[in-house]
Amino acid sequence: MNVRKAPQVGTPAGMRALNQRAVLDRLRDHGPSTRPQIAKETGLSKPTVGQALLDLERHGLVRPVGRTTAGPGRSAVVYEPNPAAAYVLGIDIGRLRIRAAVSDLAGSVIARVDERNRCRSADALVRKVQELAVRTVTDAGLSLDDVITKVVGSPGVPDPGGRGMHLAPNLPGWERKGLLDELEAVLGPGLVVENDANLAAIGELEYGVARGVDVFVAVTIGTGIGMGIVIDGRLFRGAHGAAGEVGYLPYPDSTEDTQVRGQFEGAAAAHSVVGMAHARGLNQVRSAREVFGLAKSGDERALEVVRDEAGRLAYLVAAVSAVLDPELVVLSGGVGTNIELLSEPLETALRRSTPLVPRIVAGELGDGAVLSGAIALGLKSARDLVFDRRKTITL
Amino acid sequence: MNVRKAPQVGTPAGMRALNQRAVLDRLRDHGPSTRPQIAKETGLSKPTVGQALLDLERHGLVRPVGRTTAGPGRSAVVYEPNPAAAYVLGIDIGRLRIRAAVSDLAGSVIARVDERNRCRSADALVRKVQELAVRTVTDAGLSLDDVITKVVGSPGVPDPGGRGMHLAPNLPGWERKGLLDELEAVLGPGLVVENDANLAAIGELEYGVARGVDVFVAVTIGTGIGMGIVIDGRLFRGAHGAAGEVGYLPYPDSTEDTQVRGQFEGAAAAHSVVGMAHARGLNQVRSAREVFGLAKSGDERALEVVRDEAGRLAYLVAAVSAVLDPELVVLSGGVGTNIELLSEPLETALRRSTPLVPRIVAGELGDGAVLSGAIALGLKSARDLVFDRRKTITL
Repeated sequence: MNVRKAPQVGTPAGMRALNQRAVLDRLRDHGPSTRPQIAKETGLSKPTVGQALLDLERHGLVRPVGRTTAGPGRSAVVYEPNPAAAYVLGIDIGRLRIRAAVSDLAGSVIARVDERNRCRSADALVRKVQELAVRTVTDAGLSLDDVITKVVGSPGVPDPGGRGMHLAPNLPGWERKGLLDELEAVLGPGLVVENDANLAAIGELEYGVARGVDVFVAVTIGTGIGMGIVIDGRLFRGAHGAAGEVGYLPYPDSTEDTQVRGQFEGAAAAHSVVGMAHARGLNQVRSAREVFGLAKSGDERALEVVRDEAGRLAYLVAAVSAVLDPELVVLSGGVGTNIELLSEPLETALRRSTPLVPRIVAGELGDGAVLSGAIALGLKSARDLVFDRRKTITL
Repeated sequence: MNVRKAPQVGTPAGMRALNQRAVLDRLRDHGPSTRPQIAKETGLSKPTVGQALLDLERHGLVRPVGRTTAGPGRSAVVYEPNPAAAYVLGIDIGRLRIRAAVSDLAGSVIARVDERNRCRSADALVRKVQELAVRTVTDAGLSLDDVITKVVGSPGVPDPGGRGMHLAPNLPGWERKGLLDELEAVLGPGLVVENDANLAAIGELEYGVARGVDVFVAVTIGTGIGMGIVIDGRLFRGAHGAAGEVGYLPYPDSTEDTQVRGQFEGAAAAHSVVGMAHARGLNQVRSAREVFGLAKSGDERALEVVRDEAGRLAYLVAAVSAVLDPELVVLSGGVGTNIELLSEPLETALRRSTPLVPRIVAGELGDGAVLSGAIALGLKSARDLVFDRRKTITL
């Protein structure tokens, strides 16, 4: 992701690039402004700002949006970053649904697609990803070539060596070698593949409940279990990209084959909620959603299942707190999202097992968190890329 | 700790300070050098370097150590940072031993004291800390006033609000309010109190087995259990300073009162090794050290205890790996140091429970890791402080 080049400050061209970047950053951070406003707040001279705006406009990176009308003196042109300077595609590959969205460089989503994932093989899933990507950019009036960065969120950990995914047992065939190359072949250049729980954390950090929080974790509990970790406002991925793979927490009396699925995921993911419901005689339920629905309507056995699940999640939060001491734990996913039912028994169990009790809340973005995070990550990359590539774009 | 002021670059005095700092940093990083060498490698002019060296020498921060003799041209004066510009005191308060050391600014330890901790109250312990501190600086031919930074390592988490320590159940009375003020009263200004496991991690990072490792944890297993976390070469403390308090990991079937002692500490610290030995009929043993000694000599029951303890440590490593994905796990402390006995059963148990298996090694600094980390942390602070205070020192 780190594609920004060191500016060549020793040369006139380098100085000019630095000034353009300063003006563009100022417009991105503070919104539409005039040449005198930018000069005042960057410390650059008005002619220098004027030249930088001219250069940026010629490269399609800024555009005039009007003129000032009020106030003394002559009216001045108001500039803003050009939202159409580049586009970003985000894709969330979930076990149950696949979602895609295209955003302009200002972060406005201009097309969005959401479908069930019925794929039973990696081949089918790669084709489905391609189909959805093309459909979404077409809906936006674009082609894939217009998209400068494509961010794909997936369960598991990208493996740069084997160009595949590790630790993604819930997607059939998804761990095969070369999968990242297959995705790149159908999506084109500018592809970034990121763990879905990491993207959900970025989503909640940029647009959701974790805005401004320095140290937090976002835990997704659904078909699988994952966790994104944010430290000092940045994603922490660990030494091999596997930080937050809390589905692999050791769990007492587990009978999982841990080379396939983690002990804690076996004990607390959605299928385990269904299993606990069956064990309590609720033989008809087929999904965790049904169990939480029954609990909401007051079914005593379903409420017991919810309490058991809350106890398991307390174990997770206690372990994470003992290691990381986060300020905030954000819960999401098909199971995690039922915070109004889980919260009280979870906190009770937590206080019994540890004095380290963080704030626990539901995510604000619901099942859109991964997609929002994909767009946010893509925008960061794209905003550098359009600047660094500005010469090849228009000159 | 962050006491370094922003340089005032807009003024001649500010420029002079920047040049002095550049020259001093260059001498610290590359060792003794001449004025022409420094000029060449900093890009500053020879007269500017000469003025900076003159200023630094007048402030006692650099000193001449000789002249070049070989090579063409006139011989030049060789300068080095003055090791006597400041002194640092490190203190390691352990449940069983208290250690203190004084180092000069070059990091050379010039006095060291190591004693059993027989204190049974916080009052006695504060007095003992004072006595050891005074004895150590006196041995070094100094007084406490000559020591610019004093770093005290202690179990628990410093609480800036109550000016005391949290989560330090193994030191009687140590959690009382105002304890940090009491320590400051006997040690004087420049006091930094840091969690001992954090200091052990810094020690192994600066001088030990973790040199150059980006993401690692240093786990101390002895009377208590603690862990220091290093991310991107810096200590990670969590949102409230409690990161790495893995004694509070939830542990199955624990009967600990978790407001006093953590579940995992109850299950795996030294006293638990003794408990497991008693349960296996080794009624005579009184310390974990004895158990490991018996195991080394081939005692079958002691070896079974070691295997059980290794299984518990595997649980710890598995949990930490699922959350943090460290590159390296460094073990130390009275229990953790027995890596040659623990390593094989630990890794076997670990591979059974998770696919995430980090490298596990013993610390290189043994029971000196906390003290080394205290000195390293103190030196970082002192090297900034002597520069920022140089005016008040000699002008």
